[in-house]
Amino acid sequence: MRRNIYLDMKTPEEALSLFLDRIPTSSYPGSERIPVLNARSRITAAPVHARLSSPAFHTAAMDGFAIRAHESYGAGPGRPVKLTVALSAWPVNTGQPVPGDADAVIMIEHVHFLNEAEFEIEDALVPWENVRRVGEDFVASEMIMPARHEITAYDLGALLSAGMVDVEVVVRPVVCLVPTGSELVDAADAQSLERDEYKMIEFNTVILAGLVEKHGGRPVRRPIVRDEFDLIKDAVLEGVRSEAHVVVINAGSSAGSEDYTAAAIRELGEILVHGVAMMPGKPTILGIVEGKPVIGNPGYPVSSALSFEVFGVPLLRIMQGLPMWARPSITAVMTRKIPSKLGREEFFRVKLGRIGDRILAAPLPRGAGSITTLTRADGIIRIPMRSEGIEQGAKVQVELLKEPQSIDKTIVVIGSHDLLLDILDDEMRPYGLFVSSSHVGSLGGLLALKNRNAHVATSHLLDAETGIYNWSFVKKYIPDVKVRVFHGVMREQGFIVPKNNPKGIKDFSDLVRDDVCFINRQAGAGTRVLLDYYLQRHGLDPDSIRGYELEEYTHTSVAVAVLSGVADVGMGILAAAEALGLDFIPVATEQYDLVIPEEFVDDDKILRLLEVMGSEQFKQRVRALGGYNTDRTGQELKPA
Amino acid sequence: MRRNIYLDMKTPEEALSLFLDRIPTSSYPGSERIPVLNARSRITAAPVHARLSSPAFHTAAMDGFAIRAHESYGAGPGRPVKLTVALSAWPVNTGQPVPGDADAVIMIEHVHFLNEAEFEIEDALVPWENVRRVGEDFVASEMIMPARHEITAYDLGALLSAGMVDVEVVVRPVVCLVPTGSELVDAADAQSLERDEYKMIEFNTVILAGLVEKHGGRPVRRPIVRDEFDLIKDAVLEGVRSEAHVVVINAGSSAGSEDYTAAAIRELGEILVHGVAMMPGKPTILGIVEGKPVIGNPGYPVSSALSFEVFGVPLLRIMQGLPMWARPSITAVMTRKIPSKLGREEFFRVKLGRIGDRILAAPLPRGAGSITTLTRADGIIRIPMRSEGIEQGAKVQVELLKEPQSIDKTIVVIGSHDLLLDILDDEMRPYGLFVSSSHVGSLGGLLALKNRNAHVATSHLLDAETGIYNWSFVKKYIPDVKVRVFHGVMREQGFIVPKNNPKGIKDFSDLVRDDVCFINRQAGAGTRVLLDYYLQRHGLDPDSIRGYELEEYTHTSVAVAVLSGVADVGMGILAAAEALGLDFIPVATEQYDLVIPEEFVDDDKILRLLEVMGSEQFKQRVRALGGYNTDRTGQELKPA
Repeated sequence: MRRNIYLDMKTPEEALSLFLDRIPTSSYPGSERIPVLNARSRITAAPVHARLSSPAFHTAAMDGFAIRAHESYGAGPGRPVKLTVALSAWPVNTGQPVPGDADAVIMIEHVHFLNEAEFEIEDALVPWENVRRVGEDFVASEMIMPARHEITAYDLGALLSAGMVDVEVVVRPVVCLVPTGSELVDAADAQSLERDEYKMIEFNTVILAGLVEKHGGRPVRRPIVRDEFDLIKDAVLEGVRSEAHVVVINAGSSAGSEDYTAAAIRELGEILVHGVAMMPGKPTILGIVEGKPVIGNPGYPVSSALSFEVFGVPLLRIMQGLPMWARPSITAVMTRKIPSKLGREEFFRVKLGRIGDRILAAPLPRGAGSITTLTRADGIIRIPMRSEGIEQGAKVQVELLKEPQSIDKTIVVIGSHDLLLDILDDEMRPYGLFVSSSHVGSLGGLLALKNRNAHVATSHLLDAETGIYNWSFVKKYIPDVKVRVFHGVMREQGFIVPKNNPKGIKDFSDLVRDDVCFINRQAGAGTRVLLDYYLQRHGLDPDSIRGYELEEYTHTSVAVAVLSGVADVGMGILAAAEALGLDFIPVATEQYDLVIPEEFVDDDKILRLLEVMGSEQFKQRVRALGGYNTDRTGQELKPA
Repeated sequence: MRRNIYLDMKTPEEALSLFLDRIPTSSYPGSERIPVLNARSRITAAPVHARLSSPAFHTAAMDGFAIRAHESYGAGPGRPVKLTVALSAWPVNTGQPVPGDADAVIMIEHVHFLNEAEFEIEDALVPWENVRRVGEDFVASEMIMPARHEITAYDLGALLSAGMVDVEVVVRPVVCLVPTGSELVDAADAQSLERDEYKMIEFNTVILAGLVEKHGGRPVRRPIVRDEFDLIKDAVLEGVRSEAHVVVINAGSSAGSEDYTAAAIRELGEILVHGVAMMPGKPTILGIVEGKPVIGNPGYPVSSALSFEVFGVPLLRIMQGLPMWARPSITAVMTRKIPSKLGREEFFRVKLGRIGDRILAAPLPRGAGSITTLTRADGIIRIPMRSEGIEQGAKVQVELLKEPQSIDKTIVVIGSHDLLLDILDDEMRPYGLFVSSSHVGSLGGLLALKNRNAHVATSHLLDAETGIYNWSFVKKYIPDVKVRVFHGVMREQGFIVPKNNPKGIKDFSDLVRDDVCFINRQAGAGTRVLLDYYLQRHGLDPDSIRGYELEEYTHTSVAVAVLSGVADVGMGILAAAEALGLDFIPVATEQYDLVIPEEFVDDDKILRLLEVMGSEQFKQRVRALGGYNTDRTGQELKPA
């Protein structure tokens, strides 16, 4: 039954064409004449024909004297010809008009003055030598720009050079953005918002406003409307009766109790599409009211942005007479399998990096509520309706969110999570380099090297027998990969507990208490290995720990679990506890290193990375996080 | 001697690093706190750490009721559990806070109301089901953006979601742009400028202002300064003592009589570089006055823009803490040889197109005075100092001026010139397609097909023996290329003469008159073939025509030669004469066709091209040019 609802839904393409076809062209913005000085990035409304030729008159191409070429005939080395200023020669500078019937310019360097009024030359000039003739670049009436062309900085020069100070451009489509939601507060009123106010700063329409501007429109953000039918209906009506060419109601497009947008559009006009077979973005509404397009945009931030790019942006393009928009795209290889449901097009955000000659795409979390899955993404892949997902190693087409050059400037780090990776990324930026880190645990990092999915693995795996970190795991799990190991930091591991440690956790024996719920790290994480090592040392049975089976993937997630009351205690680093204002009980100091395949160590990017890690500035910033020792940071570690 | 001057010059890289190294960082712009609402495209001044977690509180991920998960335990199909609104269940919508100690949300669709206050559920929920937990996206204090990061539309959402309404960004570097030149007039005062005023609208600083904005700076255009030393000196001083971070004097950087910029900088401060081994851009001056960078930018429009991109843009980047800027680039194959002088880096503008699996680069004219060589360019290639040029067929790296996708959307037309090609380009734009035409004459077009350098050749070659156009030339010159021929237009060819035909040209016999100077088209041009055909028919000897050896490459250039007095008469099409207000004496109607290799005819782009050519709208626009018959336009012609 649910499934049928999905299958009955319009595909994004169907929905879009249904929408665009029904919007009367009379609702498109017209054109306006604006000064060329303000015309950068505007779209020409008609072909632009030059008013004047360029140059508009014969122009000196050199500094010197304009002469009649035939009066120089016969001149040569030792055979000077005499010319008289104002009679047979006129001073000109580059760019100035060539006066009268002069038809050549003798360079100032080739002129030998006899007195103030006369000079000799020893060159014969051919007609039009050193002269830019009328119309050399283009001639009056010539088409210098087609219609529907985005005016560049260079174009401003061509327009003015053609004697035009105004240009006819397409009026920027005005998009009225109406935020709805009783829990929302406007950024302008949110100066001192605290978490315990249970309010959220409205930001979907701020993102949309940015997208509207980026695509040539003019956004008008309206005040937040509470979740009440009449208010939303009024807002739609006000919108379509304003100067706006498009009205967007964000959110209120889900199927819940406050889904008034659909009802409002239905009552005032017509709904063309309600629900689209895409994810995120399913609850999108496309309608028309009083001849103007109205979009009911979904409420989750990622859904809101992506859905607007699928429906709103093409609308803005067509209204400006521009062809459909597509991001540049590249082919990449998936680092892991991503399953997808049949019957809907799915938009996955991915990180990109180049390892050797392959560009790799690593999927980000798919949660539509997490705006950072967009801000951190390098690209988007679309999984078609009829696909059940993408296999690891499969080739995919990735729409780029960043400049393509940035892919080659990215160091791909996979493995154990540490906050120093953020600092490392920040410190590499001035060199035009990026650090892209995925957190899959230490062992996951080593295996990524084996699959050539990363430049660097981060690891803190303790060999319980030798007390030495990482080397034995390297030998066991990736024996065929020649690697070198560089020291990262020594860092404190301990118990992360709520403020004031309400359950009075002191040591490992407290973890098996009945009234204590633990939150664990995933298998293969260095912290998990460390925990297991200590449990064994203390003769404690993992099965007797409540929550041992609950796994999180980063220190921060463990801290969040403690903060939110999911667990009473977790194991992690001091910095994660401090970040969330939680308490921390140190239990061990451990070693966190970088494992780098031999083949990448001499890469310029990696050399720079190691240089930055060794810098005092970097170490100082890491120590400031708390719980770190950076004495040997950046040093190579001898194989054990 | 001249050569030595060149070799002594700094390379662009040397000049740039000399310049950047000497600018005190104290002159860089600082940072400022601005509302997030205005922060799109601004650069973060420091790493941004979240003020609040996102979400900042447990948030409903579905519309429904917040409950305590454990109170649902035991529920199942046929085993309902009863819950009471306000006691054990609280209505929530997606995005709203989960109140009190509730830890799960039951979807509204799964709730069966018994009365207004009570409902039953038949699902057991696990803790945190349908809840977005605190910090699911990121936690307070986490770094959500590094320093020196350009804020995107998406980022605005992340910032607001982190509870931040302000953000610390780099102050936009202010660039003071001073135009100099006595022949210049400001766009604002040029409403009705005519060619006979011998004034030029100043546009170099308008282009520069656009480039400054594009690269994050804030341009301040100053009034035009006349070519007088004291005025220019005052302008430099005013500039460096203003809020500006950079001062650009445009132009006055050549070696002529009005070269006051260098003198002014020398007197007020220090010249670091004067003259750079690059072309265009050689006369660039880089200096420092009162601790602020001053650029003396060359005066030719292309030199001005490119030199600023080489020196000004990196300066703006470094001032904002951004890594050096590079355009995306691709590898292409040169369609013809371009020679270059040793000892200077040369910047060539090129058109790009994809033919089969090769991307081809065709050079545009190198004149630095022709701004359209920039506006029409798809990319730029740099020929290094130590190279004497690039061979035909060689691979080159091309910096892209357009989006890379546009290359695949471009139809490459090479051959005979006609104004209808501009209209064709304009008409293809709404379909997201471009027509890029190079004018090398009909025969050049056919040979371009042979070399697989074009999708379409335009040709109007008359076989004097059969009176049939094009086919015999196809068979003779490109026998191995399977082509189809589509009719373009019938057009009038004739004599282009000055207004009122002062020399009284009537027919071909007038061309051999002693007092008549002719301007010819290049060998291989259809118009040249046509001329020779008629000369032969009339028994006239080409050698007896004055100017027969003077060649131009397009109808328009011929018309310009007539307009500017280089010649008394030339042969060309009516439209070219009309464009320049010249007179026209028709002598023949000829056939202008499109020759398309079989392999491309079914390409979507070509199908669209033929469709557009057949459209009434296109034909009407062509006829409006004058001298065209479009009865069979777009029809395929049977092989002759």
